[in-house]
Amino acid sequence: MMRDQLFHHSHQPFYRSPFGAVPVSQEVTLRLGGTLMPTAVKASVRLWREGLGEEIIAMNPVEGSETPKAVWEACFIALKKPGLAWYYFVVEHEEGVRYYGNNSQRLGGLGQMQMEAPYSWQLTVHRDQFHVPAWYKEGIMYQIFPDRFYNGLSRNKIRSPKKNSFLYAHWEDDPVYVKDPVTGSILRWDFHGGNLEGIIEKLPYLQSLGISILYLNPIFEAASNHRYDTGDYKKIDPMLGSEATFEALCQKAEALGMRIILDGVFSHTGSDSRYFNREGNYATLGAYHSKNSPYFPWYRFKNYPEEYDCWWGIDNMPNTNEMEHSFRNFIIDEEDSVIRRWLRKGASGWRLDVADELPDPFIRALRQAMKETNPESVLIGEVWEDATNKVAYGERREYLLGDELDAVMNYPFREAVIRFFTEKDSGSETAMQLMSLYENYPREAFYSCMNLVGSHDRTRILTVLGEAPDEVKMGTQEKISYRLPKKKRRRAENRFCLLTAFQMTFPGVPVIYYGDEAGMEGFSDPLNRRTFPWGSENQTLLDWVKKMTAIRNGHEVFLKGDWQWLSTGENHIAFTRCVRSGDQGEMAVVALNRHEKQSVVFQEKMPHLTEAPLTDLISGYQVTPEGEWLTLELAPQTVMILLAPLKITACKDDKVV
Amino acid sequence: MMRDQLFHHSHQPFYRSPFGAVPVSQEVTLRLGGTLMPTAVKASVRLWREGLGEEIIAMNPVEGSETPKAVWEACFIALKKPGLAWYYFVVEHEEGVRYYGNNSQRLGGLGQMQMEAPYSWQLTVHRDQFHVPAWYKEGIMYQIFPDRFYNGLSRNKIRSPKKNSFLYAHWEDDPVYVKDPVTGSILRWDFHGGNLEGIIEKLPYLQSLGISILYLNPIFEAASNHRYDTGDYKKIDPMLGSEATFEALCQKAEALGMRIILDGVFSHTGSDSRYFNREGNYATLGAYHSKNSPYFPWYRFKNYPEEYDCWWGIDNMPNTNEMEHSFRNFIIDEEDSVIRRWLRKGASGWRLDVADELPDPFIRALRQAMKETNPESVLIGEVWEDATNKVAYGERREYLLGDELDAVMNYPFREAVIRFFTEKDSGSETAMQLMSLYENYPREAFYSCMNLVGSHDRTRILTVLGEAPDEVKMGTQEKISYRLPKKKRRRAENRFCLLTAFQMTFPGVPVIYYGDEAGMEGFSDPLNRRTFPWGSENQTLLDWVKKMTAIRNGHEVFLKGDWQWLSTGENHIAFTRCVRSGDQGEMAVVALNRHEKQSVVFQEKMPHLTEAPLTDLISGYQVTPEGEWLTLELAPQTVMILLAPLKITACKDDKVV
Repeated sequence: MMRDQLFHHSHQPFYRSPFGAVPVSQEVTLRLGGTLMPTAVKASVRLWREGLGEEIIAMNPVEGSETPKAVWEACFIALKKPGLAWYYFVVEHEEGVRYYGNNSQRLGGLGQMQMEAPYSWQLTVHRDQFHVPAWYKEGIMYQIFPDRFYNGLSRNKIRSPKKNSFLYAHWEDDPVYVKDPVTGSILRWDFHGGNLEGIIEKLPYLQSLGISILYLNPIFEAASNHRYDTGDYKKIDPMLGSEATFEALCQKAEALGMRIILDGVFSHTGSDSRYFNREGNYATLGAYHSKNSPYFPWYRFKNYPEEYDCWWGIDNMPNTNEMEHSFRNFIIDEEDSVIRRWLRKGASGWRLDVADELPDPFIRALRQAMKETNPESVLIGEVWEDATNKVAYGERREYLLGDELDAVMNYPFREAVIRFFTEKDSGSETAMQLMSLYENYPREAFYSCMNLVGSHDRTRILTVLGEAPDEVKMGTQEKISYRLPKKKRRRAENRFCLLTAFQMTFPGVPVIYYGDEAGMEGFSDPLNRRTFPWGSENQTLLDWVKKMTAIRNGHEVFLKGDWQWLSTGENHIAFTRCVRSGDQGEMAVVALNRHEKQSVVFQEKMPHLTEAPLTDLISGYQVTPEGEWLTLELAPQTVMILLAPLKITACKDDKVV
Repeated sequence: MMRDQLFHHSHQPFYRSPFGAVPVSQEVTLRLGGTLMPTAVKASVRLWREGLGEEIIAMNPVEGSETPKAVWEACFIALKKPGLAWYYFVVEHEEGVRYYGNNSQRLGGLGQMQMEAPYSWQLTVHRDQFHVPAWYKEGIMYQIFPDRFYNGLSRNKIRSPKKNSFLYAHWEDDPVYVKDPVTGSILRWDFHGGNLEGIIEKLPYLQSLGISILYLNPIFEAASNHRYDTGDYKKIDPMLGSEATFEALCQKAEALGMRIILDGVFSHTGSDSRYFNREGNYATLGAYHSKNSPYFPWYRFKNYPEEYDCWWGIDNMPNTNEMEHSFRNFIIDEEDSVIRRWLRKGASGWRLDVADELPDPFIRALRQAMKETNPESVLIGEVWEDATNKVAYGERREYLLGDELDAVMNYPFREAVIRFFTEKDSGSETAMQLMSLYENYPREAFYSCMNLVGSHDRTRILTVLGEAPDEVKMGTQEKISYRLPKKKRRRAENRFCLLTAFQMTFPGVPVIYYGDEAGMEGFSDPLNRRTFPWGSENQTLLDWVKKMTAIRNGHEVFLKGDWQWLSTGENHIAFTRCVRSGDQGEMAVVALNRHEKQSVVFQEKMPHLTEAPLTDLISGYQVTPEGEWLTLELAPQTVMILLAPLKITACKDDKVV
């Protein structure tokens, strides 16, 4: 008996068109190829659409295709409202039913045949108008944890230190948590004393680093050093500065071409706040003190006042009722709402902490208020997984369908590149993981992703790339003292350089977590929140990062060029970026070999190349294509960023393919 | 059958003479009274003397005493060398043997009959010449934990903070330990930034408080805030000041009539020291780094270099070989030894940390070097129990026999007065406990005891007197936040006032632990090491303490007067102090009623009183004796300190009885 063979590859325009996420009411064509028993009688698409449910769409043989080698086709309007659709294929013949669906990793692309109902491919349908402001999309972001970046006051004075808090004796001192030995809860907050004046003073440094967006961890008054336990949404923490300092920061940043993104923490407040006021440090009548408090409806008490719903069970962060009218009004709607106020004072956007905990209607309203106040502002969400299909608390989230977030923190990107550079996945596997995001995300969202490799919530990238031992098995002092041994450190630095080249040439907004560019190491919180080592920066890394950001900022192709994999293998990965404007065009080829010892050679047909040589932006070295063929030899642990003119005649339909 | 009755009371001169500890070669008379069967044939003293062993000394009937009511007597030279003797009585008659020995609490005084070998009475024999300098014996001491007393630098600057240490944000912040959550060891040391300049600035305050002796917790360079982990014995910790600051402190203190006692920590050093240098913070070749280090013989390694003998198993405090030649030389003998050096720079004495861990020959040599350098210097030891009979590490210690310590920290005094004022023991029981010390200690040592009620090693006295809940059952934050509720606080303050009156009129050197006079509360370390509340002192307590110190300092009778119990009962305690000089004399009666509601009335025959009324130094109120009888009515929770002339004719043998 001849075995049935079926084929669909969601990335190939022949099989699915158009590629990836589509706007509402877009007609989509799906094709299925197959080598089938002659008895095959029926092929169909099994479609499942949000709001509509299941539908079976008959497929028709494409003209000119013949049994046993046939191609079937179906066209349909994906969805008329933003949402997700899911599909797989069903083929029926006399011998029974065959299913063809998404691969077992559910990453899209090539499918596989199954005897039972298979995984589906995802088809994202987004709002027609989904535009993210260019200043953001084309920027490079720098994340600052304000207490640890720089103290800009003279003689390192620490202004307005908090009651019952600890100050580090020296800027260089390693951070440690001061916990209750019995309960494990924080006994004291520890401060190094970085402040907004410090950021202002370092703006020229950030400019020299090619930065155009500053994302600040929370800066409003709060008891802790991370300030995710907001005490007063309308007051800059006095340790950091005043409202005037904040305005000065925004103005001076803008003068140097930089914008500020604030951290919006709305799913909870601090217990030590104007609103809850458990600690009694505010003059207000807090929810904790009276049911007559105007803030009482903001919270959910189980057993008043000692038991209340709180973030991850941490009792100094009571959760809020986001949709409660007075809360929503305070944060979003009213004339001087938190959201509007700080945009007016100079912020250019908000990053929403724990977006999963915020209801969709809350995020939609928040976006609306933002865009009303400043249409050029951007809204970013903290989401840890693929944000198009995230299910949180039993609900499919609608973050990236066009009405909510402009962008998300791209932790899946971080995960994928780390797995590649630490040799856990091959280049091909990494390519699939990133393609999955590219396919599922609206293009605007993909080009707006915060492509981070470090953050205040993750181990420092150098420590990860150096494959430090598992910190779970280490003692506190051991973790503090740990530095990568020489050999591992060298490897980590090499990997970091390749990774930075990758990050800076990939679509999306590259993010540098403060100090990663200076060679900082450190395990997870608090060791990933050490102070910036002013004066002891690793100059080699810093120079490299500056070079990479300059390459990105200097070439439009990296800011908005189309992107496509060129070649992937066990140890290498290569992609192209292409941009055209009228009859001008530019193409970049980025190719990396992660292997420490072996070279990688690959050859690809590239019809868009002219006869002009390609110039490596890093070394200045030139590579000449042979006709339409480009052969690249990558020495161990190297990256090439080749630039060449684009042959416009090879582009169809005004699109770069 | 008539029951045998025997009687000996070691406090009564008729039964034991002279009272208490005696100098070498002193003849001692012991008497035993009894109502015995007429067949009694033999009474003897069973004596056990250090160095001599057991001896049975026959007793002779005292002339004029008759069977069945007889008195036996024995005279003997207690000991020709300093040491302890122990005795009980044996009576043999036809019916068998009867033993009469010390009471079951072994407190001396009245004995009890036993059928088997009983407890002995102790008889301390000390060196003939045992004189403690008057400046010390007649002083009032104030203990300062330097980091927490006062920062004397302008704008609270903290000079030379240590690497990887924490500074409190505010002087008022509550101290907490920063411990490794897993191992429990200290991760970071925490500093408030008190310093020697601060002490200098507060000398006038201390003078107004009546202080003449300052005992400072360690001040030499060390990693911790308590500085018991010495880093450099010859360097003042730079956070505290310089050698010049120390000299200035000594000079300025002296100008105001105050002397300085330093804390000598010789049983161990810090691991982070010039000598051990585990942390590598010193330029010296430390014992930890090489067996060729000159300091290698100072320590005891088990498995070089990671395993070594250390204080209570705390690895940052390696124990020293005190008797090792080069160590002893460095600390004691050489011209610029630690001991000599700081006496020459202005210190007037040393308090030996953990004296139990220092060999007797080490302490003897240390004393000798001190007295050579400055005959007026004093040596005090940290001993927690009765220091005359302490057995440590299997050896009977010779602290108070005249060749070693001048004085000890009187923790048994603290225990006894706390038990009295918290109503755990009656006044009579308390009297017995204190009499036991009085009997066992050489008079010079008893009059030199550091009569402390608080220290850096114990819960704050107010917290104890307020009967706060057991801290063992409390959480860390709960302990920090705890303050005595109003009613308990009021009771604690009342008790504190009575206790202070007691302490200031009792023989020995009263010690005020910094801040106790200001009303500080706090559980054990670190909460007993809070910062002095400058500006928020409890004025009532402070005024009372000043009044009591002024009473002590203003009347010779409290500085050196003979001391005797006058009356004790369930809730009251009263004693006299008498002093005479030529045909002048003064007597004080101190009487306390601890009860919160009931008055106490007692009447005692006092042949030494003249007809002059007694004046209460507190209230100015006068009490007139009726002939030889004094009747006192003590209102609830009151103390009277009555002063009257002494009737010299009632004194025998130039001694006040």
